[in-house]
Amino acid sequence: MSTDSTSPQPTSAPLILRALRGEATERPPVWFMRQAGRYLPEYRALRSRSNFLEMCHDADLASEVTLQPLRRYGFDAGIIFSDILLPLQSMGMELRFEAGEGPRFPNPLRTDADVDGLKAFDPERDLPAPMRAIRLCRAATDTPILGFAGAPFTLACYATEGGGSDAWVTTKRMMYEQPARFQRLLDRLADAVGDHLQAQVEAGAVAVQLFDTWAGALSVEDLRRFALPAAARALSRVKGAPRIFFTRDAGPFLPYLREVGADVYGLDWRVDMAAARAALGDVPVQGNLDPISLFAPPAEVKRRVRSIIAAAGPRGHVFNLGHGIHLDTPLEGVDAAVSAVKEWTWG
Amino acid sequence: MSTDSTSPQPTSAPLILRALRGEATERPPVWFMRQAGRYLPEYRALRSRSNFLEMCHDADLASEVTLQPLRRYGFDAGIIFSDILLPLQSMGMELRFEAGEGPRFPNPLRTDADVDGLKAFDPERDLPAPMRAIRLCRAATDTPILGFAGAPFTLACYATEGGGSDAWVTTKRMMYEQPARFQRLLDRLADAVGDHLQAQVEAGAVAVQLFDTWAGALSVEDLRRFALPAAARALSRVKGAPRIFFTRDAGPFLPYLREVGADVYGLDWRVDMAAARAALGDVPVQGNLDPISLFAPPAEVKRRVRSIIAAAGPRGHVFNLGHGIHLDTPLEGVDAAVSAVKEWTWG
Repeated sequence: MSTDSTSPQPTSAPLILRALRGEATERPPVWFMRQAGRYLPEYRALRSRSNFLEMCHDADLASEVTLQPLRRYGFDAGIIFSDILLPLQSMGMELRFEAGEGPRFPNPLRTDADVDGLKAFDPERDLPAPMRAIRLCRAATDTPILGFAGAPFTLACYATEGGGSDAWVTTKRMMYEQPARFQRLLDRLADAVGDHLQAQVEAGAVAVQLFDTWAGALSVEDLRRFALPAAARALSRVKGAPRIFFTRDAGPFLPYLREVGADVYGLDWRVDMAAARAALGDVPVQGNLDPISLFAPPAEVKRRVRSIIAAAGPRGHVFNLGHGIHLDTPLEGVDAAVSAVKEWTWG
Repeated sequence: MSTDSTSPQPTSAPLILRALRGEATERPPVWFMRQAGRYLPEYRALRSRSNFLEMCHDADLASEVTLQPLRRYGFDAGIIFSDILLPLQSMGMELRFEAGEGPRFPNPLRTDADVDGLKAFDPERDLPAPMRAIRLCRAATDTPILGFAGAPFTLACYATEGGGSDAWVTTKRMMYEQPARFQRLLDRLADAVGDHLQAQVEAGAVAVQLFDTWAGALSVEDLRRFALPAAARALSRVKGAPRIFFTRDAGPFLPYLREVGADVYGLDWRVDMAAARAALGDVPVQGNLDPISLFAPPAEVKRRVRSIIAAAGPRGHVFNLGHGIHLDTPLEGVDAAVSAVKEWTWG
């Protein structure tokens, strides 16, 4: 397509920022959750020489990994390479990632003394790598960089359970039996991750995302009592950049999500985009391709991408997956999806 | 409470059947998914002497295990002890349950020949134990007995993946790349489980439930193209008893669930009962206490039970958990929940 010199100049704000602010864009910007990760051969090459936590704490490696998917696919934003569990480590919890297992906290929080024993968290002092990596990325590329953190409820799940779980029995028992203790933990975590997000904004992140991966384990009653207010508390500490709230189970919670007070809502892949738009009202959204659909033939990937863009409409939509990219994802599936987004033009 | 001899006599139909038909009941009937299971000491005692598959195929053991929770708690229905994967075994797939692992099919279905090679399934000939166990239970108790089966999509997940999965990559690849093959598999499974449900009705099951545990892995588009029509096909083969459809992720799919054409919809615990009632319209529902909330103090369990009953209203509600009971559930939590349901009286 040739450039029409009579058409209005695009504003100077980057595409992703315009969409995150709810503006109409000529096409949606695109980035993928976990785009800096194991499906990329160049990531696996680096990862084979370093362990995961070392990479997170090394700003040079973290920025390099952040830039890899931008070079290969031209995503409209990078998401800084880090992990949601690092603030818990900075607050004094021993954290292990062992081969073939998920994360482990060998000494989970169980008592009032455990919760009160969490150390104060100063992001620049206690977890400087993500901010340094953001600054390095900003020096290396014009592509906007996103910061992120885990939501208080999701972090509380890992901190109390000691690792991943299907049922979160220990977490929920504390919530039921010691709601004041659980609330104090959420408050501590909300303040910590809120400050961490703000530090990332100050380091140059164009926007930040709060990941409430496990909020979908809760009933609506518990979600509204614990998870959403804690996420709102965290986000209330962030100024100067759009704040995205993502939960892996937005579907049943659509009528309540806006209690978080985020600027943008990330949708998982089980939610029909048109229904989500109707339920959420006039607020920007992000999502929501099934990450496993990237394994489909390229033409089918493209059809699915276009269907989501059409349903989302021209205003305030950031294209993304509905969950993190699967580590075995074929590169051609990613290419098909990104191309389909970039080929789109609104009328 | 004394009996008021001037009040109308209750109809002769059992409480659960009245609720499943959508009638108003004085209180909701109550049963729990997986109530015949490992949280019961008397189950563990039997289980320690037999392996799981042997118990499923032994009608005496299966009926005994079905009756155990009825004796201890007076549930308003028993659910026959069996497993959703047995029809796949009967159709020729090797099935293993190994300690500490989930179910395994060492030879999953991958090709057209694999799908076409599934044997014809005649329930009374190929899987007689559940029907025999229903007859034994009926001889032993007046408490109504429920039959069940796995929904075609959920069975197709296990049959193609070869076991449980977080992402169902193999299943979805077949769905994307070979939709005709996947559809033929769903059709075969739908007819098999439909016939299995009908055989259970003919053996005396008062109602049957189709479990679509993994439908929630799908986008709305794939759900409506594959999972819901396949469930509808299965249920269309069942006559003479109410048919309950349960999926573990009803929330995002509420506007579409009735495409299944079931008589009753089972709700998971993330769905707000009042919102589900509004979305589903005039159809009986079942659910939906968070199974982990049975770990809460008894007074809190009871409060949560009452809140769900009040939200569901007096007509067409079967009280249940929103998912199967957790194997570590404390007995006093079950007692508190069942008591709270039984203590309820509508006006």
